[in-house]
Amino acid sequence: MNHVSDIFIDPEPIKLDCGDALHYQLSYETYGTLNANKTNAILIFHALTGDQYVASINPVTKKAGWWTNMVGAGLPIDTDKYFIICANVLGGCLGSTGPASTNPDSGEIYGLNFPIITISDMVRAQVRLIDHFNIDILFSVIGGSMGGMLVLEFAANYKNRLLCAIPIATGSRHSSQNIAFHEVGRQAVMADPNWHGGNYHNHDEQPSKGLAVARMAAHITYMSDQSLHEKFGRNLQDRDSVSFGFDADFQIESYLRHQGMSFVDRFDANSYLYLTRAMDYFDLAAQFDDNLMAAFAGTNIRFCLISFTSDWLFPPEESKLIAQALNRVAANVSYVEVNSPKGHDAFLLDEPEMFSAVTGFLASTAHKHAICDEGSK
Amino acid sequence: MNHVSDIFIDPEPIKLDCGDALHYQLSYETYGTLNANKTNAILIFHALTGDQYVASINPVTKKAGWWTNMVGAGLPIDTDKYFIICANVLGGCLGSTGPASTNPDSGEIYGLNFPIITISDMVRAQVRLIDHFNIDILFSVIGGSMGGMLVLEFAANYKNRLLCAIPIATGSRHSSQNIAFHEVGRQAVMADPNWHGGNYHNHDEQPSKGLAVARMAAHITYMSDQSLHEKFGRNLQDRDSVSFGFDADFQIESYLRHQGMSFVDRFDANSYLYLTRAMDYFDLAAQFDDNLMAAFAGTNIRFCLISFTSDWLFPPEESKLIAQALNRVAANVSYVEVNSPKGHDAFLLDEPEMFSAVTGFLASTAHKHAICDEGSK
Repeated sequence: MNHVSDIFIDPEPIKLDCGDALHYQLSYETYGTLNANKTNAILIFHALTGDQYVASINPVTKKAGWWTNMVGAGLPIDTDKYFIICANVLGGCLGSTGPASTNPDSGEIYGLNFPIITISDMVRAQVRLIDHFNIDILFSVIGGSMGGMLVLEFAANYKNRLLCAIPIATGSRHSSQNIAFHEVGRQAVMADPNWHGGNYHNHDEQPSKGLAVARMAAHITYMSDQSLHEKFGRNLQDRDSVSFGFDADFQIESYLRHQGMSFVDRFDANSYLYLTRAMDYFDLAAQFDDNLMAAFAGTNIRFCLISFTSDWLFPPEESKLIAQALNRVAANVSYVEVNSPKGHDAFLLDEPEMFSAVTGFLASTAHKHAICDEGSK
Repeated sequence: MNHVSDIFIDPEPIKLDCGDALHYQLSYETYGTLNANKTNAILIFHALTGDQYVASINPVTKKAGWWTNMVGAGLPIDTDKYFIICANVLGGCLGSTGPASTNPDSGEIYGLNFPIITISDMVRAQVRLIDHFNIDILFSVIGGSMGGMLVLEFAANYKNRLLCAIPIATGSRHSSQNIAFHEVGRQAVMADPNWHGGNYHNHDEQPSKGLAVARMAAHITYMSDQSLHEKFGRNLQDRDSVSFGFDADFQIESYLRHQGMSFVDRFDANSYLYLTRAMDYFDLAAQFDDNLMAAFAGTNIRFCLISFTSDWLFPPEESKLIAQALNRVAANVSYVEVNSPKGHDAFLLDEPEMFSAVTGFLASTAHKHAICDEGSK
């Protein structure tokens, strides 16, 4: 498959929701080939701690892409048919401009001087990327979790720039409980003295312990009680009986500690603060006078919403709220509630029902618009 | 009401599950009057961060007792009828021996040299307290959350020492997800450099930031998604619009920060580690060859199990498992599932259905055994 890594340096700054103007770049990957009419492009948005390496090796972790079961030749998002773009979000830490970038005005790393980024800002930057490709209308935008928020934001505000949208395991706003978990994670980072008020790069240190705790707390929310029970239960780690101490006696403890420690090697702590904040601030209805229907009024976009029964971070109710708003404005919407015990992370895992829903939905939309019937033409 | 604060200093050490022998004391409160036959005593077990001040002012916080809606004259646990005992658990930090106590052998504060305590150990110590009162048979043992674990442990291992038991919002073992949340909290404490490997007392410091983060994470699990939504939603704190920063913009953030900060003023960080560990280790069936029925075989104790529909820390399924085991050994068991949106903390709140269940259950048991029909006689 045709695969390109590149960086888009916008010659113009973008105006952010906070009022600042920001010079920025986006680091992105593409897979497949853009057809001559530029009608077969799919933009994928990654989740909070995801990246642009959707179907290629992440150069930091050396691991395979995070959606290799979804994106590739013959897969639901078929690189033989579609041209796939995935960019590291604005505020991220894998090549796009974020708090670990150098402020061109001062020559210093931004740290907390980086402006607060919103989901709208992230989408605005990626629309510029699409413009850079001279793509007028995307075939589809797809994403899960935070990525799903970007899908909704895109669909609501760029109604003429895409044919179909697939928001997965997401919501139209961040719930109180979700803000609470994010706040715990941020406080864990900020409590680490190595954070230095966000200025750790200048101290050659990392708030690794705090960021690991943040990741551990978040990771629990990505799984379900049932999946934890089935995967770990009360099984002990490399021992026959408890140690009567504070070692990782239980497998779940050992697993969580590993999740925390491996995360800090690949993610910038300040980026974590900024991206969680962007999710907290997301409230699509609030952009339309607290009327979610108004966000979609008059849309011609086809929607396929997907949720997972055991996802308690973005439970099916959140997707249903979106489906209801879409139905009330007579939009074309499919809603698929996948019966899965795997919790929120199900959208990254082997979920045949999700794969077939995406395959079928893209095929029917492509057929309707006479796109890609015989590959990239 | 007759109210006494006292300390029980056991002349003999107790043998702990970890193998150590420990000299200890228990700080306790009593309310009401023990009748001449000593048949009207109720032992209340407190929850993880609870204390013995069930119906009297906590001298540290100066706040009213934590169960003043349940315990008092004319209330479900009626101090006009019953003699109520509530002790700070072994391992606690409000007068009972715990990691903040001084090791008599070394003259130093225990810190992490304190032995690991189990739920069994806590109960064993309180049975000695009951012996100290020369009470052969308790009328009832009652407790919620961790307190409910102590109730189950007591009922299973001291079958002839009580007439009835009320375990509320609890489980017969700590789940994988619950262990996970505890581990996050412990890692947050241990990540705080002021923790000093548990030796902070000797540094005149407190791992306050880490303990506050631990409390914040735990506090989320004490509420339900719905109760957070209803109480806070996405409401802003003292502002009309978001600050585009990391202040506590949202009420839920401000609330959580307050919960974290006020907790560290009243709780010892090492105690938090030890008590969470005791809960993690709790697995009643494991004491009986992984057979929960065996824990209750032949019991004459009457049980009243209470759970709350929105409690996701100890969901109703956990109580149902206990009810099933009790049913299978033909025990006398009532199970009350209270429809409440308030989450785990419901057991501390105004829940009329819980109050009437406790009132009725105690009255019928008292009537059956001809106890307290006319007050403490």
